[in-house]
Amino acid sequence: MIETAKGVRDFPAEETIIRNEMMNKIITVFENYGFSPLETPTIERFSTLSAKFAAGDESDALKETFTFTDQGERKLGLRFDLTVPLSRFIAMNPTLKMPFKRYEIGKVFRDGPIKLGRYREFVQCDVDIIGCKTMRAEAELLLLALDVFKELDIDAYVEVNNRKLLSGILDTVGITQSHESVITILDKMSKIGLAGVESELYNLGVAKEKTKQLTDIFDMRGDRHKILDGLKKIMTTDAGKQGIAELEELFSILKDFKDNIKLNISLARGLSYYTGTVFEGFIKNNKIKSSICGGGRYDNMIGLFAGNKEFPAVGISFGLEPITEFMKLTKLKINKTVTEIFIVPINTFQESLKIAQQLRKAGVNTEIDLLDKGVSKNLSYVNSLDIPHVLFIGEEELKKEKVKLRNMKTGKEELLTVELVIERLA
Amino acid sequence: MIETAKGVRDFPAEETIIRNEMMNKIITVFENYGFSPLETPTIERFSTLSAKFAAGDESDALKETFTFTDQGERKLGLRFDLTVPLSRFIAMNPTLKMPFKRYEIGKVFRDGPIKLGRYREFVQCDVDIIGCKTMRAEAELLLLALDVFKELDIDAYVEVNNRKLLSGILDTVGITQSHESVITILDKMSKIGLAGVESELYNLGVAKEKTKQLTDIFDMRGDRHKILDGLKKIMTTDAGKQGIAELEELFSILKDFKDNIKLNISLARGLSYYTGTVFEGFIKNNKIKSSICGGGRYDNMIGLFAGNKEFPAVGISFGLEPITEFMKLTKLKINKTVTEIFIVPINTFQESLKIAQQLRKAGVNTEIDLLDKGVSKNLSYVNSLDIPHVLFIGEEELKKEKVKLRNMKTGKEELLTVELVIERLA
Repeated sequence: MIETAKGVRDFPAEETIIRNEMMNKIITVFENYGFSPLETPTIERFSTLSAKFAAGDESDALKETFTFTDQGERKLGLRFDLTVPLSRFIAMNPTLKMPFKRYEIGKVFRDGPIKLGRYREFVQCDVDIIGCKTMRAEAELLLLALDVFKELDIDAYVEVNNRKLLSGILDTVGITQSHESVITILDKMSKIGLAGVESELYNLGVAKEKTKQLTDIFDMRGDRHKILDGLKKIMTTDAGKQGIAELEELFSILKDFKDNIKLNISLARGLSYYTGTVFEGFIKNNKIKSSICGGGRYDNMIGLFAGNKEFPAVGISFGLEPITEFMKLTKLKINKTVTEIFIVPINTFQESLKIAQQLRKAGVNTEIDLLDKGVSKNLSYVNSLDIPHVLFIGEEELKKEKVKLRNMKTGKEELLTVELVIERLA
Repeated sequence: MIETAKGVRDFPAEETIIRNEMMNKIITVFENYGFSPLETPTIERFSTLSAKFAAGDESDALKETFTFTDQGERKLGLRFDLTVPLSRFIAMNPTLKMPFKRYEIGKVFRDGPIKLGRYREFVQCDVDIIGCKTMRAEAELLLLALDVFKELDIDAYVEVNNRKLLSGILDTVGITQSHESVITILDKMSKIGLAGVESELYNLGVAKEKTKQLTDIFDMRGDRHKILDGLKKIMTTDAGKQGIAELEELFSILKDFKDNIKLNISLARGLSYYTGTVFEGFIKNNKIKSSICGGGRYDNMIGLFAGNKEFPAVGISFGLEPITEFMKLTKLKINKTVTEIFIVPINTFQESLKIAQQLRKAGVNTEIDLLDKGVSKNLSYVNSLDIPHVLFIGEEELKKEKVKLRNMKTGKEELLTVELVIERLA
C-alpha cells in the first residue's frame, strides 16, 4: 500500500493556499518590524543539535530527533526547532552586528508520538532579537505578535510571565522539589485545572499546605500592577524581585499599548532554556484554549555554541498549523484553486491559446482546456474547483472578435471583446 | 568546532531576500498559468522513494538518498526530488480531477559528492501537468518557462528534444550498446564537446564510423522544420517517427510563439524516466552554459505508484540556486535588510515607539534602536546594513511636533511632521 510516512501530511491546494496566505501575512508583519529573513539548513550535525543538552539538561527534543549518517559516516540529524540553527549561525558569524533581528519560516521535525494536532513535520515561524538585554526587545515582540493577530484577523491575546518571578514564588513558598518538575506541572494549569495540578504536585511530594500557598498566589486577581505589588510584599528572593522588576519595566514600556497583553503569573512554558520573560498567545473565545504562538527570553543558550560569550536573546514562534486549522474553521470561502478563469476553446485551440496569453499577461490566472473535453465535462471540472469564470471561445464568436464570458456564481453570460474581459477581471 | 553539516548552507539576509524575491516571482507565473500549490512532506517512506527503481532501473538518486528509521523502526528517507512525492500523492488520491496541474516549491536532499554548485540540500520549483497526452501540455510549460524568464528578467531560452527521436536516431544508426549509456555520453556534449563525446563513445565500443554518422546527424543545421524534414528521410524506426511527429505537433501549437524555443536533437537530459519530450533552459550569453530549468514527459512513472494505471505527465523544474547565483552576479543592488527606516530616539524611547508603530501601520518597514547606542553607533549599524532612511527623534523636535528624517544616500536632512515622513516613505 502506498502511504505517507507516519505523522507527516500532504497539503492539497485548498490547504496550501491558506497556509501560504497566512505565511505571507506573517512575513509582512515580521518585515514591517525590521526583521530580515535567514534561511538555515534542515540538516544539522548531530553534535550541534545535541550541544544544547550538553549540560545534562533533560528534554524530549533530542530523544525525538531524527538522526542518520551521510556517506562519509558523519552523524547528522533533522532540526527540531529553529533556535538551535540560529544559535549555531550566530556562533559561526562573530562579526554580526547587534542587535541581530531575524525571522525564519521553516519545517522542523520531531520523531515523537502522534496525537491530535501533533505532527512529525511542521512549520514554525520564528522571530528573534539577539543582543538586547533590556525589556525593549520583549516589548517589540509583543507588539509584533499583536500585529500578526491583526493581520491574520484573529482575535487573540498574549499572556506574559517571567521565569525568575516564578522561581521566586517557588523559593518563597519553600518548594524543595525540582523547580523544573513543579513548573512543568504548573504549566498544565490550563489543561488539567487546579485540581489536577494539586494532585500532581502532591504526587511529587509537595506538602498540601505549600500547594495551597502556591495556588493562593496564583489565584491573585486584579490588574497587573496590583498583582505585582502583592507579589513584591511576599517575595523573599533576589531573583524573584528581579523578575518583578523586569515585568514592571516591560509594562512601563508598553503603557500605551495595554490591549490584549495579560499578566499570567502561572504561565511557565515547557522549554527549560527560558531565563526570564515568557509569553504565549491564545485565540479568544475559542472552545479549547489553543496556543498559536509562544516564546521568551533565553539569555544562556547561544553561549553554549559561542564559547560562553553572552548573547541575550528573546524570541517568539508562531505555529502555522494551529493558525491554519483555526482559519479553516472560520473562513467563509476556502479556495480550491488559484485559477480565476478557465478557457473552453470550441475548435479554436490555437486562437484560444493566444487569448490565454493575453489574459495571463494582464495578470489574470488563466487555465485553458488541454484535453478537448467538450463543454459539459469542462464545466464539471470548473465546478469541482470552484473556478469563478469561464470563457467560451467559438469560431462564430471569433469572427465577430468576441468571446463569451460566463460568471459561474451568477450564471450570467456576456459576449465581450477580449479587452473588455481583461478589464473585468484584471 | 561549530559548523554546518557538509554540503548544506546558511543563507543570510542578503541571500534570502533575493531567494524569496525569485521564488515569489516564479510562484506568480506558476499561478498565472493556473497551477495551484501542493505541499508534500520532506520525509517519505523508503519504500515510496525506492518504488521508482523497482524495475531495476539504475540511478544515483536512490544511492544518494538520506535514510533513517523512526522510533517505530519504520524505514524512511528524505525526498530527493518532488516528482516521487507527487506520484505518491496522485496514487493516494484516485478521485483527483484531470488534468491535475500543481506546483510545488520545496527542499530536496541528495547525499552525494560536493562539487561547485552541487549541494546536499537545495530548492526545486516544480510545475507539472498530469493527465494530458497531447503536446498541449508541453506547449503550456514551454510558454510558462519563457514567462518565468521574463518575470525574473533573465535573458534565456529553452532547448527542446524528444527521447523517442533520440532513440530512433540511435537505432537508425545501428547502435547496439545501451541507449542509456550512449545518451548519457551525448548529454555531455555541451560540457565536454564533440571530441570528448567521440572519445567516450569509442571507449563504450561504438565504432568510429557510427559515431561519425551520429555526430553528422547531430550537426544538422537550419531551422527546426528543416532539421525534422531531414530526420524524416533517414529515420527507420516507428518510435523515431513518432518522436518527429510529436515535435512537429508541438511546434505547430507554438507556431505563434517561436522566440527562445530551440530544437536541439542531441539534448538528452540525464534522468532515465523521460519518455518523450525533454527540455532544458539556459541563460543566454553566459560564459558557462548553465542550466536553470529542465524537464520533460514521463508517462510511465506515476503508474509505478498507481497500480500501473496510465498517467501521462509532463513537468518542468526550475533550480532556485542557479537562478539566484546568476541574479547575484547581475543585480546592481543587493539588499542586506528589509528595513526601510531606522529610528534613533534621543531620550525619547516611549514617544519614538509610538511613532514607530505609526510608521509600521502605514506599511513602512521600521526598526527602532533597542540598545540606547547613541547616534554614531546607530549610524554605523545603519550603514553596515544599508538602511536607506534614519529618523532622529529628540525632545526638542517633539516639542515642535517634528522629527528629523535623514536620507542616507544623499545625506539630506529634513525636519518634518510624522505624517509627512509617512507620506514620503509609504
